Amino acid sequence: MPIEVIAFDADDTLWINEPYFREAEVKFCELLSGYMPPNQAERELFAVEMQNLPLYGYGIKSFVLCLVETALKITDYQIPPRIIEEILGYGKEMLEKPVILLEGVEEVLSTLYGRFRLVVATKGDLLDQERKLRKSGLEKYFHHIEIMSDKKEADYSKLIRHLDIRPEAFLMVGNSLKSDILPVLGVGGHAVHVPFDITWAHEQIDHAVEHANFSQMATIREILAFV
Amino acid sequence: MPIEVIAFDADDTLWINEPYFREAEVKFCELLSGYMPPNQAERELFAVEMQNLPLYGYGIKSFVLCLVETALKITDYQIPPRIIEEILGYGKEMLEKPVILLEGVEEVLSTLYGRFRLVVATKGDLLDQERKLRKSGLEKYFHHIEIMSDKKEADYSKLIRHLDIRPEAFLMVGNSLKSDILPVLGVGGHAVHVPFDITWAHEQIDHAVEHANFSQMATIREILAFV
Repeated sequence: MPIEVIAFDADDTLWINEPYFREAEVKFCELLSGYMPPNQAERELFAVEMQNLPLYGYGIKSFVLCLVETALKITDYQIPPRIIEEILGYGKEMLEKPVILLEGVEEVLSTLYGRFRLVVATKGDLLDQERKLRKSGLEKYFHHIEIMSDKKEADYSKLIRHLDIRPEAFLMVGNSLKSDILPVLGVGGHAVHVPFDITWAHEQIDHAVEHANFSQMATIREILAFV
Repeated sequence: MPIEVIAFDADDTLWINEPYFREAEVKFCELLSGYMPPNQAERELFAVEMQNLPLYGYGIKSFVLCLVETALKITDYQIPPRIIEEILGYGKEMLEKPVILLEGVEEVLSTLYGRFRLVVATKGDLLDQERKLRKSGLEKYFHHIEIMSDKKEADYSKLIRHLDIRPEAFLMVGNSLKSDILPVLGVGGHAVHVPFDITWAHEQIDHAVEHANFSQMATIREILAFV
């Protein structure tokens, strides 16, 4: 069955994202280095994030709420309120970051446009992802944007049902093996992995993927030869 | 042209929501009453919310970030960090509130089910709205849930395009004249207003609505006679 819909992950597949989170994390750990060594603070933050994930979900606002909670914890409630304000400022800054496209993205989308139904399939805050899509200049290539609260098999099944296609007609392109590739293969879709140079610990898996519907690519441009 | 899709606003149309925000606001203003009289604190909060709205959007996480920012401001950065923790706790509590259906909702949905494509069209966080939909037991009646970053005319035009119907085949049901009714009428759809007993200041309008495609109802049950 031919591919009908190609879904693209957004963050670190179409544009740079993870480095902004890392940058904020580094600043945060520096800011509190008088209370705790940075690498330990980073672990505390990750623990708070994982604990809050089922409740908060993904995105910058969740991240900032976790930064505030972690700051309270690692300073043992001795944090000066001005530092809380600085942390809120990190979030606002992230929400206004420029959108920097990854290499080859525009060429790939403009070539595929009109030949497939193209959608964005991403986690995070709707408003923020819409902002990035608008700033990216890529909006014109996409039929619509699908915000997913998570990227597990059930979420992809729902997405594919919503698209009114069979799983075999669905191709997902993304940088996270855990979120963009494995669950898609699990529900019978096709998946292409285009790695980004850094991956959030939560998105890492420690085994290789082998599957008839799976392709590993070095750059997004290779999709053009593939479809 | 007959109605094909009926979209329901979620918060304060299908289930109780605004009272949870009000309750948190009251607790927040009480908590800080040593620094500022409650009614003044409420105004400060509203100002912070309006200022952050374009950046943060709607939903509980945005609300909590605004509570923290307002608390810093009205205590002139003298706030004890334990109070910040209490504020974060308000948000978590809100995210775990029970979902209480409004009267007549289940009867209306079960009657309309199968005769129209029913969708939820709501602002707020996707994860939180999905949680409420799941807890509500209403999920089975809806084709899907549409999370909108805002409810202006352009947002409804996009929604209607996404639904692949003409505006005249779209009926929106909701409690906010500003968000659920006026913009829908503006793009050529039909709209039914079912008021809820309290409305957030940001959603209030001060004029009556008159339009051929508009109906005012006292309870959601009246929809059954209408369609």
